[in-house]
Amino acid sequence: MSDRIEARLQSLRQLMKQRGLAAYLIPTDDFHSSEYVGEYFKAREYMSGFTGSAGTLVVLEEQAALWTDGRYFIQAEEQLRDSSIRLMKTGRPGVPSMAEYLRDQLEEGAKIGFDGRCVTEQLIQTLAKETDRKEIVFYGEEDLVDRVWKNRPKLSAEPVWELDVKYTGLDREEKLLRVREQMEEQGADILLVTALDEIAWLLNLRGNDVQNTPVFLSYLLIERERATLCVQEQILPGAVREKLERAGVRTAPYGQVEALLNKLPEGQTIWLDGRRVNYRLLHCVPEGVRKLDRVSPIEGLKAVKTQAEMKHIRIAHVRDGAAVTQFMWWLKTHVARERITEMEAAEKLETFRAQMDGYLGPSFDPIIAYGVHGAIVHYEPVPQTNVRIQAKGLCLADTGGHYREGTTDITRTIALGEITAEEKRACTLVLRGHLNLAAARFPYGVCGQNLDILAREPLWESGLDYNHGTGHGVGYLLNVHEGPQSFRWRIQGADYVPLEEGMVISNEPGLYLPGRFGVRHENLMLCRKGEKNEYGQFMYLEPLTMAPFDLDAIDPSLMTDRERELLNAYHKKVYESLSPYLEGEVLEWLGKATAAV
Amino acid sequence: MSDRIEARLQSLRQLMKQRGLAAYLIPTDDFHSSEYVGEYFKAREYMSGFTGSAGTLVVLEEQAALWTDGRYFIQAEEQLRDSSIRLMKTGRPGVPSMAEYLRDQLEEGAKIGFDGRCVTEQLIQTLAKETDRKEIVFYGEEDLVDRVWKNRPKLSAEPVWELDVKYTGLDREEKLLRVREQMEEQGADILLVTALDEIAWLLNLRGNDVQNTPVFLSYLLIERERATLCVQEQILPGAVREKLERAGVRTAPYGQVEALLNKLPEGQTIWLDGRRVNYRLLHCVPEGVRKLDRVSPIEGLKAVKTQAEMKHIRIAHVRDGAAVTQFMWWLKTHVARERITEMEAAEKLETFRAQMDGYLGPSFDPIIAYGVHGAIVHYEPVPQTNVRIQAKGLCLADTGGHYREGTTDITRTIALGEITAEEKRACTLVLRGHLNLAAARFPYGVCGQNLDILAREPLWESGLDYNHGTGHGVGYLLNVHEGPQSFRWRIQGADYVPLEEGMVISNEPGLYLPGRFGVRHENLMLCRKGEKNEYGQFMYLEPLTMAPFDLDAIDPSLMTDRERELLNAYHKKVYESLSPYLEGEVLEWLGKATAAV
Repeated sequence: MSDRIEARLQSLRQLMKQRGLAAYLIPTDDFHSSEYVGEYFKAREYMSGFTGSAGTLVVLEEQAALWTDGRYFIQAEEQLRDSSIRLMKTGRPGVPSMAEYLRDQLEEGAKIGFDGRCVTEQLIQTLAKETDRKEIVFYGEEDLVDRVWKNRPKLSAEPVWELDVKYTGLDREEKLLRVREQMEEQGADILLVTALDEIAWLLNLRGNDVQNTPVFLSYLLIERERATLCVQEQILPGAVREKLERAGVRTAPYGQVEALLNKLPEGQTIWLDGRRVNYRLLHCVPEGVRKLDRVSPIEGLKAVKTQAEMKHIRIAHVRDGAAVTQFMWWLKTHVARERITEMEAAEKLETFRAQMDGYLGPSFDPIIAYGVHGAIVHYEPVPQTNVRIQAKGLCLADTGGHYREGTTDITRTIALGEITAEEKRACTLVLRGHLNLAAARFPYGVCGQNLDILAREPLWESGLDYNHGTGHGVGYLLNVHEGPQSFRWRIQGADYVPLEEGMVISNEPGLYLPGRFGVRHENLMLCRKGEKNEYGQFMYLEPLTMAPFDLDAIDPSLMTDRERELLNAYHKKVYESLSPYLEGEVLEWLGKATAAV
Repeated sequence: MSDRIEARLQSLRQLMKQRGLAAYLIPTDDFHSSEYVGEYFKAREYMSGFTGSAGTLVVLEEQAALWTDGRYFIQAEEQLRDSSIRLMKTGRPGVPSMAEYLRDQLEEGAKIGFDGRCVTEQLIQTLAKETDRKEIVFYGEEDLVDRVWKNRPKLSAEPVWELDVKYTGLDREEKLLRVREQMEEQGADILLVTALDEIAWLLNLRGNDVQNTPVFLSYLLIERERATLCVQEQILPGAVREKLERAGVRTAPYGQVEALLNKLPEGQTIWLDGRRVNYRLLHCVPEGVRKLDRVSPIEGLKAVKTQAEMKHIRIAHVRDGAAVTQFMWWLKTHVARERITEMEAAEKLETFRAQMDGYLGPSFDPIIAYGVHGAIVHYEPVPQTNVRIQAKGLCLADTGGHYREGTTDITRTIALGEITAEEKRACTLVLRGHLNLAAARFPYGVCGQNLDILAREPLWESGLDYNHGTGHGVGYLLNVHEGPQSFRWRIQGADYVPLEEGMVISNEPGLYLPGRFGVRHENLMLCRKGEKNEYGQFMYLEPLTMAPFDLDAIDPSLMTDRERELLNAYHKKVYESLSPYLEGEVLEWLGKATAAV
């Protein structure tokens, strides 16, 4: 293994030398800043042997280093052990950042190469700023890994399919109209859309080119009168192409986006979203074209679900809840008598989901984290870490699925056999926060940053906390993480928006005791309008996720009367929703699992 | 009265005509954007007859209009009734803003005059922007009211006195050092300080030139090596002047600040706080001097109290609490058998405060608001509105004092005789919010915008709210309102700061039912460091205000167990703090008033 990696690094270094490059960056990104990537884009994995979903490899003439975060330290240590690549544990004391490392290692005026399609301008700007005394030169024109990579998988080209307007609630003509209204307001002649979920949403199309995400590789250029979809043309069925044309959307080859940008006439204004557009595309825009760097107008439109989407999302969550409930029952009743590893448990849950109508696949890599693994936020079982689940302690299961009716994301912390008083106390504290946030009533205008404390206060009171946001937006059969809404307390820049009716948002406080156990309770919620009176338009959060919180992990005596009432009311709703879908032992268990405390 | 006002307006119009001015603005401000102003500055009152503390008069050739806010509508209606001045009720539907009015009334290229020392550049910028199609010319060079105003009161020139370092905890040399550190960091050669509380804080001096505020008229120019205090020189005792000179602070006449700014050498950088510096001064700075418009470095330093200040503030609050407790007892026991008006009650409270050691005077105009008046936020009894307090319903008392040991600000809602179940419910809901916010525990970094919801959630749950912030900073023997900290939920621009140990902040939720009654419960709190652990530095809020919340207005059955515990713990502390200062019937009453519920 290691010899293979060294050979690859050496080939790359030869190419670097020919081009006078002192360093080459290999990130974990596709051309669209997608959260997950297809096989074609796993260049960092090919060049380093490290298979985690996040990390950046930097190759210098004599050395190489790889940065990754806490959830991958164990796996990366093992996978890099026999290589010459140094593991950089991001955030650990004494570990230099990539910019610091480059600043220290490179000589003045050195040239850094990278595939400009796989990094954002923002990253390069940051590197430039933090190494400015070295006057580093950036060269993003060539994908050198492509020359090293034998038998590179082809660019994914799965067929595109149409999501009927009965699911989306708005047709593509109406969506284009709304986007063009905002272009008009902002004085933009062209909007460049590079985020794949935004393109899929806008065109009411779905695909299968990116892991865990039903989107397709493409770029979209929207002008006032027409639009151009740059896409691998073989993935578009003829009927879809015709419909696009009727909506004023012509198609062009995927790679032609650069030429189209190059040819933009002077004096025009192009709107692009600097957080996501890649370095190469940004540099294709001619000097004489004015760049408007704003959050894409599609982000906000997409986040506010239509009535049709809301109706279907509720249906998806009942089916998903039935699958998760079967899984909870199965794990709790089988763990003592069968050998079940984390990865096997994840597969079992997948089989329960796969039996549900409309199920299309997981919305992210399942996190089944038993015992000490629960304390690693975003832990994901892989062969290097996979353990057998014992009939003792806590198992954290954070998983989700895509259904034709919408996307789910749920975490349950499941008590197996005996659990300690401390585990129970932790589970109860976290649940109190979850319930208090879920019960929030607030006037329109309030942002996630105002509400976050409701989930944290029970922990903060005890001097505890969790080091992640409390919630994120969720797409409709799109990305499982989407903006602009979120629950977190840090206010940064202008990064806060009011919660709007129709936004889906997760509520997932946790508690992580390293080396011991972890707890997280997550439901998705739908923001709704409530009473309107002289004080304003009040809003509330409707629970979407329908599955019991494991009462075996809860000590009701640590809860207030109101918190117990909230839990009982939720569980009553869970039983009513799921019981028609379950039977026999599972239904019997659900009855007990949702009994009032 | 009205004839006098008309004559004054006519004189002003003659002067306007001579100068070709189509409009003249008369705001309610001194040269320092102070919250309250001295007699010399009551130009708007002189020209209009309206005595309220907020309002702007606009005089045109043929008409005049005065803008004021909701708390003054009744009073202004009465005082303007017989005049030609039109009352503009800010915020009421159909009422134009000042900018809209000017845009509608003035012709293109018209010239607007004002005393440039009494308005901020920001106001003029806003007017310019909102009237831009009219190409209005602004002329801020002359105080025309001064030429009309016969027997204008002299500019206040009360003696300056020194606040001993035993109260301030830091001497002026150290404070100057810290300010210059920040100037260095920002690359500023000169800092222009115009806010009177900032100058008083920095120099450990106090005065008496502004109503309700122990500050003195002055400007301060801080350079790297020296500083210049522009001040009416007769108000500085020789000993103070000598001490200032030893600290590198020379003095110059008050009016000389303009000449000093005029003479600044090109290429230098001046730091000024655009929110507060007046129009005239800003325009005195030569073109070649770079302007750095930032929040003054003194704001943040001043907000974080020293150990000495904290110690004394606690003492001031015990004395103030003893005075307020006597007042509460007196009002509750005497209201049925004596004729007591709102203004008489305010005077009585002042006599209780005046008996306390170190008392210097009120920190703002007292709000004693009986019955329906309680629903007018910031109501202030004046002869036109003053009513007799009856032995029935609620009386809201929001008052405060300056002591040598610090500044207080307290609101109690006092039950008199019978109160309705609805009044009791409102008082209890608001108290729940107050108690929950007061009990907050949070990691360092959290801002007021994150915490505000704790005070509002009990109201929001019931579809209720109050239309003001939940809390503001308080100075040490300075302004009763100071930044940068606050409790409110709207996040605007970059206007949020973490709560720091040593900040004093009010906690004052309320509920206002127009035409019926109002409720507010206010304590000041001191932000403190608590436990530090792997999750961060936890913070908590120590109550400073020591006076009972009137239990006659509270229904404990509407509170949670925790809320009752919080109330009882606070009341226990109140009794322990105040009982040494009280005796006889009042002490006996305090015992009952702080009994556990």
